[in-house]
Amino acid sequence: MSDFDEAVGQHKVRDLSEAERGRAQIRLAEHEMPGLMALRAEWGPSQPLTGARIAGSIHMTVQTAVLIETLIALGAQVRWASCNIFSTQDEAAAAVVVGPQGTPARPAGAPVFAWKGETLEDYWWCAEQIFAWPGEGPNMILDDGGDATLLVHQGLEAEASGAVPAGPAPGEPGHSAEADALAAVLRASLAADPGRWTRAAAGIRGVTEETTTGVRRLDRLAEAGRLLFPAIDVNDSVTKSKFDNRYGIRHSLPDGLNRATDLLIGGKVALVAGYGDVGKGAAEALRGQGARVVISEIDPICALQAVMDGLQVARVEDVVAEADFFITTTGDRDIITADHMAAMKDKAVVGNIGHFDDEVDMAGLAAWPGIVRTEVKPQVHEWTFPDGHSVLVLSEGRLLNLGNATGHPSFVMSTSFANQVIAQVELFNRPEAYPLGVHRLPKTLDEKVARLHLDALGVRLTELTPAQADYLGVDVAGPYKPDHYRY
Amino acid sequence: MSDFDEAVGQHKVRDLSEAERGRAQIRLAEHEMPGLMALRAEWGPSQPLTGARIAGSIHMTVQTAVLIETLIALGAQVRWASCNIFSTQDEAAAAVVVGPQGTPARPAGAPVFAWKGETLEDYWWCAEQIFAWPGEGPNMILDDGGDATLLVHQGLEAEASGAVPAGPAPGEPGHSAEADALAAVLRASLAADPGRWTRAAAGIRGVTEETTTGVRRLDRLAEAGRLLFPAIDVNDSVTKSKFDNRYGIRHSLPDGLNRATDLLIGGKVALVAGYGDVGKGAAEALRGQGARVVISEIDPICALQAVMDGLQVARVEDVVAEADFFITTTGDRDIITADHMAAMKDKAVVGNIGHFDDEVDMAGLAAWPGIVRTEVKPQVHEWTFPDGHSVLVLSEGRLLNLGNATGHPSFVMSTSFANQVIAQVELFNRPEAYPLGVHRLPKTLDEKVARLHLDALGVRLTELTPAQADYLGVDVAGPYKPDHYRY
Amino acid sequence: MSDFDEAVGQHKVRDLSEAERGRAQIRLAEHEMPGLMALRAEWGPSQPLTGARIAGSIHMTVQTAVLIETLIALGAQVRWASCNIFSTQDEAAAAVVVGPQGTPARPAGAPVFAWKGETLEDYWWCAEQIFAWPGEGPNMILDDGGDATLLVHQGLEAEASGAVPAGPAPGEPGHSAEADALAAVLRASLAADPGRWTRAAAGIRGVTEETTTGVRRLDRLAEAGRLLFPAIDVNDSVTKSKFDNRYGIRHSLPDGLNRATDLLIGGKVALVAGYGDVGKGAAEALRGQGARVVISEIDPICALQAVMDGLQVARVEDVVAEADFFITTTGDRDIITADHMAAMKDKAVVGNIGHFDDEVDMAGLAAWPGIVRTEVKPQVHEWTFPDGHSVLVLSEGRLLNLGNATGHPSFVMSTSFANQVIAQVELFNRPEAYPLGVHRLPKTLDEKVARLHLDALGVRLTELTPAQADYLGVDVAGPYKPDHYRY
Amino acid sequence: MSDFDEAVGQHKVRDLSEAERGRAQIRLAEHEMPGLMALRAEWGPSQPLTGARIAGSIHMTVQTAVLIETLIALGAQVRWASCNIFSTQDEAAAAVVVGPQGTPARPAGAPVFAWKGETLEDYWWCAEQIFAWPGEGPNMILDDGGDATLLVHQGLEAEASGAVPAGPAPGEPGHSAEADALAAVLRASLAADPGRWTRAAAGIRGVTEETTTGVRRLDRLAEAGRLLFPAIDVNDSVTKSKFDNRYGIRHSLPDGLNRATDLLIGGKVALVAGYGDVGKGAAEALRGQGARVVISEIDPICALQAVMDGLQVARVEDVVAEADFFITTTGDRDIITADHMAAMKDKAVVGNIGHFDDEVDMAGLAAWPGIVRTEVKPQVHEWTFPDGHSVLVLSEGRLLNLGNATGHPSFVMSTSFANQVIAQVELFNRPEAYPLGVHRLPKTLDEKVARLHLDALGVRLTELTPAQADYLGVDVAGPYKPDHYRY
Repeated sequence: MSDFDEAVGQHKVRDLSEAERGRAQIRLAEHEMPGLMALRAEWGPSQPLTGARIAGSIHMTVQTAVLIETLIALGAQVRWASCNIFSTQDEAAAAVVVGPQGTPARPAGAPVFAWKGETLEDYWWCAEQIFAWPGEGPNMILDDGGDATLLVHQGLEAEASGAVPAGPAPGEPGHSAEADALAAVLRASLAADPGRWTRAAAGIRGVTEETTTGVRRLDRLAEAGRLLFPAIDVNDSVTKSKFDNRYGIRHSLPDGLNRATDLLIGGKVALVAGYGDVGKGAAEALRGQGARVVISEIDPICALQAVMDGLQVARVEDVVAEADFFITTTGDRDIITADHMAAMKDKAVVGNIGHFDDEVDMAGLAAWPGIVRTEVKPQVHEWTFPDGHSVLVLSEGRLLNLGNATGHPSFVMSTSFANQVIAQVELFNRPEAYPLGVHRLPKTLDEKVARLHLDALGVRLTELTPAQADYLGVDVAGPYKPDHYRY
Repeated sequence: MSDFDEAVGQHKVRDLSEAERGRAQIRLAEHEMPGLMALRAEWGPSQPLTGARIAGSIHMTVQTAVLIETLIALGAQVRWASCNIFSTQDEAAAAVVVGPQGTPARPAGAPVFAWKGETLEDYWWCAEQIFAWPGEGPNMILDDGGDATLLVHQGLEAEASGAVPAGPAPGEPGHSAEADALAAVLRASLAADPGRWTRAAAGIRGVTEETTTGVRRLDRLAEAGRLLFPAIDVNDSVTKSKFDNRYGIRHSLPDGLNRATDLLIGGKVALVAGYGDVGKGAAEALRGQGARVVISEIDPICALQAVMDGLQVARVEDVVAEADFFITTTGDRDIITADHMAAMKDKAVVGNIGHFDDEVDMAGLAAWPGIVRTEVKPQVHEWTFPDGHSVLVLSEGRLLNLGNATGHPSFVMSTSFANQVIAQVELFNRPEAYPLGVHRLPKTLDEKVARLHLDALGVRLTELTPAQADYLGVDVAGPYKPDHYRY
Repeated sequence: MSDFDEAVGQHKVRDLSEAERGRAQIRLAEHEMPGLMALRAEWGPSQPLTGARIAGSIHMTVQTAVLIETLIALGAQVRWASCNIFSTQDEAAAAVVVGPQGTPARPAGAPVFAWKGETLEDYWWCAEQIFAWPGEGPNMILDDGGDATLLVHQGLEAEASGAVPAGPAPGEPGHSAEADALAAVLRASLAADPGRWTRAAAGIRGVTEETTTGVRRLDRLAEAGRLLFPAIDVNDSVTKSKFDNRYGIRHSLPDGLNRATDLLIGGKVALVAGYGDVGKGAAEALRGQGARVVISEIDPICALQAVMDGLQVARVEDVVAEADFFITTTGDRDIITADHMAAMKDKAVVGNIGHFDDEVDMAGLAAWPGIVRTEVKPQVHEWTFPDGHSVLVLSEGRLLNLGNATGHPSFVMSTSFANQVIAQVELFNRPEAYPLGVHRLPKTLDEKVARLHLDALGVRLTELTPAQADYLGVDVAGPYKPDHYRY
Repeated sequence: MSDFDEAVGQHKVRDLSEAERGRAQIRLAEHEMPGLMALRAEWGPSQPLTGARIAGSIHMTVQTAVLIETLIALGAQVRWASCNIFSTQDEAAAAVVVGPQGTPARPAGAPVFAWKGETLEDYWWCAEQIFAWPGEGPNMILDDGGDATLLVHQGLEAEASGAVPAGPAPGEPGHSAEADALAAVLRASLAADPGRWTRAAAGIRGVTEETTTGVRRLDRLAEAGRLLFPAIDVNDSVTKSKFDNRYGIRHSLPDGLNRATDLLIGGKVALVAGYGDVGKGAAEALRGQGARVVISEIDPICALQAVMDGLQVARVEDVVAEADFFITTTGDRDIITADHMAAMKDKAVVGNIGHFDDEVDMAGLAAWPGIVRTEVKPQVHEWTFPDGHSVLVLSEGRLLNLGNATGHPSFVMSTSFANQVIAQVELFNRPEAYPLGVHRLPKTLDEKVARLHLDALGVRLTELTPAQADYLGVDVAGPYKPDHYRY
């Protein structure tokens, strides 16, 4: 890690004007993130995050820069890593490091440990850095996918048992290069300071988690009685799950496909695996471009929704020889297998917009006898089978909207990140309301997030009269729906 | 009520071939209600509703006939009323009375107290009849909107207090002709048998409720500690709320508008008040016909959904002079006021597809000085203001899809009614699982309902591998999502 | 034809209040036909149709009533028949006969020879009556599908040859009951007055034709040198072909399906045969209701359009066992054959919204060994095959939007009929501009029709500046596009 | 022009591996251009373009590379320029120069005079080079927008009159920097060789023109009797105008917006000026992303189409303060004026996807007192007004899909370019069929183009039976529609 520049928090800092370009983008993004800017205006004076030391791990994009600077504007200190090896926008990272008031020569922002194109070793090294706080460690985690949280939990468990268990070796079934990289970090840590993660865990008041996958991990920890600190599930705020997951994907899926391949989407057949919020957004985007969308689903309710929305529901193998695009949105593994890819038509495109890269069996593909991998351009690879047909795999099976495009647009991230900021403020200031366990934000805060975004879209909201509110049995100011309401 | 024919359970039985026509329609509807037919096949042998005496109150349509006969096929006895004065399809009612094995001359079905075009007095008389069981009273209620449940609760309270409280008199603010009609029934009952409703309430194991409005009433009773028996909220099964409310309305809103008015929907401006599931279905249907849809909303989250779906969000008064159609979907009162209607353009159409008729201020309209009401055809009235402009009001402000068309199509009702049947079976057979309170069906039963409808739509579901299920932390057979999942 | 009432121009006049109900509907329709009302306002004073005697043959609906009364308001005399045995709305016919100023007791309108549910013999008898003018015969034809024009042409040819050729006998291949009925009328006419049609043809200045089918017939007559008088092809005005055919069908197809079957369209598979303007409207409507639409096409350009619009393109036989709805829109014969229907799934729906009833092979179906036909309700028949599966055929294979619903809505017909009125005025007043042949209206009149409909839809048109018009090389007032422009 | 490298036909040739990257992209594009590849297969053996020397001027993209190499594969020689200063993809240009069989060291392709980011002087210099053929000049032109054709016509007129007329000077109304650059080229040419363009014009058999704008210019030349050689209007082939213009824009508009701005499109208001084929594609794309689209139109027919498609139709000034995106698609000038931009909301986006850069009044904007222009990134400029609000202008008012993205995708260009190839073959080989004037391709060739693209999209076409063809009066093999059919 020798060429990581501590001063500017980045591996291989290139041209320092990078930070200036990042700053210009942040300025435009602020205009598109009305929720975050409204929170700065509302809470800037009271500084509710004074004393908060936040270890943050979210894709280090321009939007995340606005989030980070919002947290700072409310009084927090932060250290940041990306939660994906490809998703960092280096200009944004540089600008955060420099800070809005700093200069490239005299950085005055926050430490960022992230760059586009990390190795797995880089990745876990960066993750470790956000806990390597000078003086006291962090007291809050802001997480996406749960890797930062995982690091603390596995670190503590390693320290408790005195060892880092070895996973399957390379070549063995179930081997994971990622798990190896994490284990290496933990082993080094255990050797260097066998109490480090135990102390870290003790200092943390809680975590706010961004994604379905991360929440699922938290739920499992909680069910197993292993959860170390309270968590707020930001993912399941309506203004996150129904906005970021759906409308964000609607935007960023075709954007990623276009930048990666320049292929016409219209007239083509697209298999979308999964019809949750991400799948719904994906299907809407592809239909909006004139594709014929086929859904694969395991959940009969989601399958029924898909068919009622006019979409064919089939299994991957039913359309494997017919589809032009295969998009995974499930959060599960082995959705597109190497066997599937072997049966696809020539130049079919495979992309993952769900979560981890095991939605597409990249390991199986790489292990296919006689396969040849050619880089078409960064993050676009043509894998040619011995029979001569090839498939184009985007972002090596990782999130294509981040790897091949710039992720969700700022406006969508403003809804997600307003939830994150509110969750950090809640958890930091009202710990009594969030005992050990996994919590969602109260509906009234969810509605607050929505409200912060209406003006920018020209919405004129109707106000309940007291008589109408009374008729419904709600308060004029909300919340308006029961907790189980599905929107 | 002298011309009610007890033998065939109907006021004014006309031509007895009515029953035969109804039977033919039921036969076609059965083909479109795969969920109910699958339950007959699955549970017919075990007769889980043996001993159940169900007082039912749902729009007495052809689809309800299939529901009633499914309940009977599982062993139940039933008595039935409609929950809306206009919604009965007389042929269906006649066919249920005659029964599948009966003949018009020798009816062998179930008693039905319902006809199209009841007065308010008729309506509450009918409601009373479904409790007037020979011998023991009913032990189950199947309700839609909560009127049957209300009757029992108010009856018991009247008996407890020894009096039926008088509401505002005609002409006074808050007067309700409907409340008067109910009070009259209760007063007569109190005079005739002051213990009747107390006994009835004691015999009832529980109620399964179909609608948002009915559930809201149940929740209020429960919160006030006045709920008399357990309730299952069928409305909030995903396969009900997201199907009946959304896809049913998508179908039946344009159907009702077309049959009522024959007006082109394309190119027109339609104000849809409310963007819940019903409003979403309404907006989708109107856009699908080429209308420009404007949404009014009080809930910032739903408003944000609407605008993200590409719809303008404004207040009724912002577009009152511009819109051609005004459709209410809110479940609240005074959505379209007489002042609104006075300001609309000539021949604007006002229709309610939410719930009660107070979404449109019919009383205020009728009281407008100089207003003239002309019947264009049954359930379509032109109200002409003194300035010469008129508005067309559908179904006198009641549900237009029922009053002007035939309600939801069979397939959609099959999802709702499969939930109802399963809820009746659950509540009747597993009372220990449903203590006093308002319950929803477990997700696994919700998924079961979905599953029962997939084959008919040609869906090929994907099956999780054990490894995939394990990765997700779910069972291969489901349920697949956490309870709070919003679909 | 003994019970045809000459006084009121209708077979079997029932209740005379029919006319009053028809008048009320006409009044509402006038509000929705801004084009026709604008033409009355513009041309009423100058009476450009004074002296015109118009033999009209278009579906005798409420909208046609507004057309007829517009022609009269511009000075014309008319006699009217329907061009379809099922499409007459009897109330509208009665109201036209009575006339806006007449009373049922003292009819003061125009003679109408049309009722819902004519036999083929009735049909051709009615067609003959519109030429049986007292005194001089008609000098203009307004036609839909070309039957009125055909009658004159075949009548003259019969008179020229002195005989009516016999077609194939019943049971022989190619037999047509319709051709037999026409031949019978011609034979009777030839016997009674062998110069009748020759005289009639001589008096006719021209015909304005409404449909693709009628225009195709005219083109063939013109190519064969047999065309007797000039024709204006109204069908190919943009404001007809792209409006009536597309947006009218978008409205009236689901309307017809709903009134006929009450079946859910959402989630179903619909095969639409043909992707011309009618097919495009059909597909849009069905998708708007959540169906999955499959297109069959013979034209590679239209097929490419369909697939680029996100629709599967397949042959009928590829999806015959899978589709729930089969809708023909082609104008060709044998699109759905009896073999197809034998292979469909149980209770598949077959409907024609193209033109003639030979799109669906009704004769082949009726001749299927062992087939059983049951009337579900008027215009809806269940045809049960010996293997037990049945198909539902709408309107006996004729136009389902007319037979099962009320045809296109008034607004759409206002665009078509404004073209008709303008074409009648052109052809009657400027015969020099329309020599023998088939003509289309000049684009400037097409744009005029569009302009007449914009205000009612709230459109604010932009006006070209002279500099902009000059840049484009057009006149500020239009026309704006070259003749070959496709819109 | 000192750093233009004649050897590789490009200004500033950078890294020679550019050509290799271009070749890899061409290989992928060939897979997506089934029409061109099918023509190579069909006509490669007969070499119908032997002897053709084609001066080509179309955006020098990867797709154009496949076009150029198809022309060469059919026997032609070519020289190429781009028709837009920003649209060249340098890698594609380099690859064409090198040629599929050449190497960067030994180029064996065709001369290309084009690079991304030409000045106006560069542009006209490049245009001149495609006529600077060694030996005999070109005998065919393949044009896009008509600049190559314009050069010949204006050159000849200058030579005829002996002078190049001076346009308005800078600062005078109507001044055009582009016209100045063209005049400079012509003056130099007139001085150097006063017979050059007269000779060139004499040698040219004809031109095939790609765009609406170019065809309009040709029509004016023909009307004025000034057209020098026959022209085929490729733009008005259905498979061009309805595909490239509509489906191409549907793809490349959001792609350009996304790459330029990364702004969320969903929930925003987009004004699309013009509802021709380009406007229809733009509107569909923006709605497909969840925007609310408002159309401005001058043509009442197109306006009526827009409103029937559910879109608001208003004037730019009606929504100027409300819209987030302003997209011009008209082919006319002054659609978005500086006054409009002064009245827009902060950070509104202005982009042109019509044709020339005068759709947006860039000159007026630049001349606004106190305006400040900041480059956000290449082809994205923020123009800040003195009041502090800014607008983002894409590609300096030129075509944003080319300047900010990569133009239409290959598949769409395959339909356009297959028309171009067929038109070149027609015009070169059958000059007798195309006398002086502006012609369209016969429908049968249009259908051929469609047919060449069906297999790749999985379309299964239905074949007419002879009886069906006879019924329609068409040939089984087509053409299937009359010439005036609008699709």
